[in-house]
Amino acid sequence: MEKDDRIEMLVCLDSASPYSFFALVVLLRYQERWNLNLKLLPVLLGAVHAATGNKPPSIMVPAKGQWLVEDMQRNARFMDVPIRGVPANFGTTLNSLQCQRVLTAIAESKGYDSKELAAAFLAFFRGIFGGEPNRDLNISDSKFLLKCCMAAGFTEAESEQYISSSKDEIIKLRLKENTALAVEKGMFGAPTIYVTPREKNLQGVRQPRDLMFFGSDRFEQLAFSFGKLWEGPNPQRSRL
Amino acid sequence: MEKDDRIEMLVCLDSASPYSFFALVVLLRYQERWNLNLKLLPVLLGAVHAATGNKPPSIMVPAKGQWLVEDMQRNARFMDVPIRGVPANFGTTLNSLQCQRVLTAIAESKGYDSKELAAAFLAFFRGIFGGEPNRDLNISDSKFLLKCCMAAGFTEAESEQYISSSKDEIIKLRLKENTALAVEKGMFGAPTIYVTPREKNLQGVRQPRDLMFFGSDRFEQLAFSFGKLWEGPNPQRSRL
Repeated sequence: MEKDDRIEMLVCLDSASPYSFFALVVLLRYQERWNLNLKLLPVLLGAVHAATGNKPPSIMVPAKGQWLVEDMQRNARFMDVPIRGVPANFGTTLNSLQCQRVLTAIAESKGYDSKELAAAFLAFFRGIFGGEPNRDLNISDSKFLLKCCMAAGFTEAESEQYISSSKDEIIKLRLKENTALAVEKGMFGAPTIYVTPREKNLQGVRQPRDLMFFGSDRFEQLAFSFGKLWEGPNPQRSRL
Repeated sequence: MEKDDRIEMLVCLDSASPYSFFALVVLLRYQERWNLNLKLLPVLLGAVHAATGNKPPSIMVPAKGQWLVEDMQRNARFMDVPIRGVPANFGTTLNSLQCQRVLTAIAESKGYDSKELAAAFLAFFRGIFGGEPNRDLNISDSKFLLKCCMAAGFTEAESEQYISSSKDEIIKLRLKENTALAVEKGMFGAPTIYVTPREKNLQGVRQPRDLMFFGSDRFEQLAFSFGKLWEGPNPQRSRL
């Protein structure tokens, strides 16, 4: 397909959000099928919540938090994404700031639409959600960050470089800016997917704003919106 | 198919919830295809929110409320459900108490799994969401209630009877009990769908509790859970 036919998609993700994990895995499976130009934006979900008055569901509505535990496991089976458990402090004191800074450093170095960034996100998601249930995991620890970077395919030297540069003011600022951009576009929770409408306003009078899809349960609607075929969350396992 | 193969489904609905409208329409399309024994439970969403600490999204997180306006319209097109607008006081002072009492009176008279109750729910949903956008609609008004009952196929005399009996203490109590039951089962928002697992515990030691699905975006997962075929929200328009 032509490059110009690509669907421009901006996916705002936090590595401590399991539904962000589902969304990324599914979108990567559809990247070629749907001819997506997939840009991944590491944002800080805690800051998005603070800016919009949102909170983790388990804190906001305890009954919803209980349901989400079931729903997450059901999604994992349905989407064929290996979520085994969540850190013990998930939804309370878990802080993804260091992870998101490292991912921002990788994005700034390799590109927001790079394979390296996608691999790094997957490695962080797996590091946080792929292990034993109810583990007490410190995701801010530099050993954890190093392990995730190396699992993403970077050498130890490269990984240490990203962790080091994640402490630079420019990277900290960039994560803040990216988070502010996402909030300005309407984000209130993760994942949030923005799609640029393909019809361009030739008069230049008014460019319609991006379409916004919240959550990992709007893929079939995304497909419907753009006339693409939805073949389930894992098209290779498709039951069509 | 045999009656015993039917999937037992309890659907907790509030007539002032557009996502409840989507869910009911889609489930009715699948009632025969999936061999569903569909029981509809009129509950009072405001009371569910009060019991669980939940609130309408537009109040809880304004940015989510904004997104939901778009999402509702997109769902309406995707699901092929004619939602045109919402009453001006939707999400704030709109009160579905009278509607839910009338629906409870119909349920008590005709049965929770009756065609009459399904028709009445559809008529109330259409009455609330099928008209001009941003109308100022009083859904507690007895004229509105009468119009909806008659649109559901009841005679004027029958309709007046349901509206009258909706004021009986037994009906008011039944709605309270049904709402409390839904909350006890885990409900925090509408629609909520409970499915009784088909595997019976022959030892009688422990009956696993019903599976719970919140929202109108889990149909494909429902199908996956029960080995049924999902053919989109409107299978007659299916793109398979």
